[in-house]
Amino acid sequence: MVVRKGEETRRAILDEAIQVASQDGLRGLTIGQLAAHIEMSKSGLFAHFKSKESLQLEVLEHARQRFIDSVMRPAFASPRGRRRLDTLFDHWLTWTNDELNGGCIFVAAASELDDRPGPVRDALVRSERDWLDSIATITGTAVAEGEFRDDVDVEQFAYELHGIMLSHHHATRLLHDGRAPERARRAYESLVEAASRPT
Amino acid sequence: MVVRKGEETRRAILDEAIQVASQDGLRGLTIGQLAAHIEMSKSGLFAHFKSKESLQLEVLEHARQRFIDSVMRPAFASPRGRRRLDTLFDHWLTWTNDELNGGCIFVAAASELDDRPGPVRDALVRSERDWLDSIATITGTAVAEGEFRDDVDVEQFAYELHGIMLSHHHATRLLHDGRAPERARRAYESLVEAASRPT
Repeated sequence: MVVRKGEETRRAILDEAIQVASQDGLRGLTIGQLAAHIEMSKSGLFAHFKSKESLQLEVLEHARQRFIDSVMRPAFASPRGRRRLDTLFDHWLTWTNDELNGGCIFVAAASELDDRPGPVRDALVRSERDWLDSIATITGTAVAEGEFRDDVDVEQFAYELHGIMLSHHHATRLLHDGRAPERARRAYESLVEAASRPT
Repeated sequence: MVVRKGEETRRAILDEAIQVASQDGLRGLTIGQLAAHIEMSKSGLFAHFKSKESLQLEVLEHARQRFIDSVMRPAFASPRGRRRLDTLFDHWLTWTNDELNGGCIFVAAASELDDRPGPVRDALVRSERDWLDSIATITGTAVAEGEFRDDVDVEQFAYELHGIMLSHHHATRLLHDGRAPERARRAYESLVEAASRPT
């Protein structure tokens, strides 16, 4: 039971830490700053996480687990093909718009860490590659089910869909563009339509 | 002559500052850090820029001027329509791949500042809106010249092209994906092809 309570506390701290990192960036997330945010002693928090770097790594891993639960799992639970891809896209929109105060933590971390070699960047790169691979795999199910053409390059599709998601993030988070979700959806429909069209 | 020399020094400092901000972000750009980087005294630099915020604003404005010279000017010098759009896209690729050590400063600033209200964010938003408006305007010349369909939504086109650019930035800067430029070009060609296709 003690272990269980420790785990729950840890998870609650990490949930808060994700929100902080989503707004201030991973680099802005220090043990001292998080301690102030959750009104816990710095030494207590230090006992949980040991160092800034291991805190950042745990936050990234925790965000990845939440992303799997919120976006990947519903997609893989949907029927293969177009419906699975639609589910992935819909849940990604919900993830970035509603689940995090400061927008997608991975988008923020990507430009924050690109010039900072080290274990945190390495973990982010693995996670981003997983994400692009998953989009490509799910796109492949639409090819296999005959909904997309055989010659669709699924990696190129993933690259372009990821671009739509990044543009949506930019339009909502920075520009506060009320038409952003509609634009994202239209861009997605064009991409899907191009992959479905007979040549 | 004294004024001229002062202007040159200022420009040289700002060129260095853009490189620093492209790698460490605008928030990482302080007068102290820049002074260390260019081996100038902090007080000397302070005389030029007064505050961190005014330094950041000047860096953003200087980057904007350079972007206009490197990307916008060649585009507007090209013939209206497809060729102008191609020129814009090509010069943007050069800008983000070759001109800045740490990738496009505006992409980095966008996710860095989205949750930080204030004059620097406001300046960035104006600059990003200008950029999207310019893409839309240039796309409009391809419609007017009859190369794109009349019903092409030029703002939607700008949103999608911007997404391709963001995806390219992510693929090169974070993932070090050697196929990124080829992917960006193929995505661009698909977008242009969709806008050109008779319905």
